[in-house]
Amino acid sequence: MKRVSGPSDDTGYLIALGRAIRTLRKERGLSQESLADAAHVDRSHMGKIERGERNVTILNIVRICFALDCPASELLLQAESQFLAPSSR
Amino acid sequence: MKRVSGPSDDTGYLIALGRAIRTLRKERGLSQESLADAAHVDRSHMGKIERGERNVTILNIVRICFALDCPASELLLQAESQFLAPSSR
Repeated sequence: MKRVSGPSDDTGYLIALGRAIRTLRKERGLSQESLADAAHVDRSHMGKIERGERNVTILNIVRICFALDCPASELLLQAESQFLAPSSR
Repeated sequence: MKRVSGPSDDTGYLIALGRAIRTLRKERGLSQESLADAAHVDRSHMGKIERGERNVTILNIVRICFALDCPASELLLQAESQFLAPSSR
């Protein structure tokens, strides 16, 4: 199966997920760098994740959520709400 | 960052996720092959995902959940409940 990277995500789900991570991060007053460090994720990779440019693995999502102190199911719930909301939001 | 594959998941999260997928699949009376086909995921890859041997990407999780007609947040909620439940369950 072709390795799917961000740009080929025609559903826009990765962008919604990245936006949800950014929202949760800012709510906690964290910089992108400190979240990356806390989640043991490479800083540039974190930037791409937040911009929806990476098809993130579940273990990285779990690490990011652990650093955000929020269950992964909650992050996905927020991504799904962004995903379904009208894009003009 | 080292590509994390299933076996190095010391948290056991991938096993809980695979178990949750299997449970949802069986509740819907689907075979592993028909779920794989419906989700456009390679059949052997699906087997490894259900056994917790693959660090699944979010787009594959979304595809599997679409085929199971269940939000990805719901799947992760079930995985989290399995993950926290005593292993003797």
